[in-house]
Amino acid sequence: MDKNTQDELKKEAAKVAADKVQAGSVLGVGTGSTVKFFIDWLGERKEKEGLTLKHIVTTSSRSKKQLESYGFKVDELADVDEVDLTVDGADRVDSQLNGIKGGGAALTLEKNVAVNSKKNIWIVDESKVVDHLSGFKLPVEVLPVSCMQVKKRLEKEGLNPEFRMNGNQKLTTHYGNYILDLDVSPIPVPAGLADYLDHTVGVVEHGLFLNICDEVIVAKSNGTIQEIKR
Amino acid sequence: MDKNTQDELKKEAAKVAADKVQAGSVLGVGTGSTVKFFIDWLGERKEKEGLTLKHIVTTSSRSKKQLESYGFKVDELADVDEVDLTVDGADRVDSQLNGIKGGGAALTLEKNVAVNSKKNIWIVDESKVVDHLSGFKLPVEVLPVSCMQVKKRLEKEGLNPEFRMNGNQKLTTHYGNYILDLDVSPIPVPAGLADYLDHTVGVVEHGLFLNICDEVIVAKSNGTIQEIKR
Repeated sequence: MDKNTQDELKKEAAKVAADKVQAGSVLGVGTGSTVKFFIDWLGERKEKEGLTLKHIVTTSSRSKKQLESYGFKVDELADVDEVDLTVDGADRVDSQLNGIKGGGAALTLEKNVAVNSKKNIWIVDESKVVDHLSGFKLPVEVLPVSCMQVKKRLEKEGLNPEFRMNGNQKLTTHYGNYILDLDVSPIPVPAGLADYLDHTVGVVEHGLFLNICDEVIVAKSNGTIQEIKR
Repeated sequence: MDKNTQDELKKEAAKVAADKVQAGSVLGVGTGSTVKFFIDWLGERKEKEGLTLKHIVTTSSRSKKQLESYGFKVDELADVDEVDLTVDGADRVDSQLNGIKGGGAALTLEKNVAVNSKKNIWIVDESKVVDHLSGFKLPVEVLPVSCMQVKKRLEKEGLNPEFRMNGNQKLTTHYGNYILDLDVSPIPVPAGLADYLDHTVGVVEHGLFLNICDEVIVAKSNGTIQEIKR
């Protein structure tokens, strides 16, 4: 599929999500190439039908800028009570709608928005959909203070951690932490690994998003849009 | 007991700990009034017997300064492999040597040093020793982004969270986060609460130190020193 056809398909999937946004609601907006189209559709709904939202929160400065370019005001999560719906992408999603996120190193913010949303919809292209979580390194955000010790622990568990780099330096997240990418594919019993990581001192957050997503909108390579609900 | 007598007792407890430090080992040093005496004893051992240590790491800038005043070089945890022994205080310690720490808002750093130490000794006065963890609010370090949502969740669970303040502002930790102090006393099944907090998105770390401490040195009000081993 050429890029134009793929973009058309992503655009169509984004429209399905944008049409689900209710006027007057609190909306969470993620980031990524498909979410970019989603924001464009929100802008169109604002222009054509005067769509207004009670609050919008977002997980990236890029999405914030794009939303503001359409005249939407973007708030901080701490300033809103609960998010009604969050629309985001995902790096992988499995048959149970569990996913891996964090390719963009914003997993901590993304998970904080997601777990405080009544409903989460992910828009993805078909390449992200797998039976069992696999084919994408699992990002784990760790505190610098104990990063070497945590890396060693994860190595001992056979999780093949590597620091994500930014040139010659360890990449630093928005929160001043580092990312360890775990090379384990497929991930057997994701809940077990999530539990282990939750209990590991020095781990701030990890990219396993389990029991969080309610619906996935898939742009399929055959040109159709598939909606999968939990 | 007057302050002088209490200080003499703390000094004596600190000496018991200082005598356990092995030359050439990697030492972790916490903070607090008794640890201050502990560092003085290290200084005396350095002067009298030429005590040297392979590495020293610490959890506070105050302890760092005091150690450096005795000519000890202080390293970062990330630069050492594993700590042989860490000596610290605690806000509460129970009959199973589980404890509450974080009165000084440094729980995240303290826990990262503690879990990467082969052995942990706490020096406390008798007022900190309880049958079941109680009488001290449990500090929980939370990300600012979702602090209001986390506070609400903990309220729903009956944990009575309150932000720790610094004047009119929420107190900010070394890591740029906030502290929620949970008013739950006594804490029934600390492991259950620790598990819940470990799984709560937005919680960076909490002050329950379970299965971490190996030995407590207690300065008792009757003038004796008690050593309790796990």
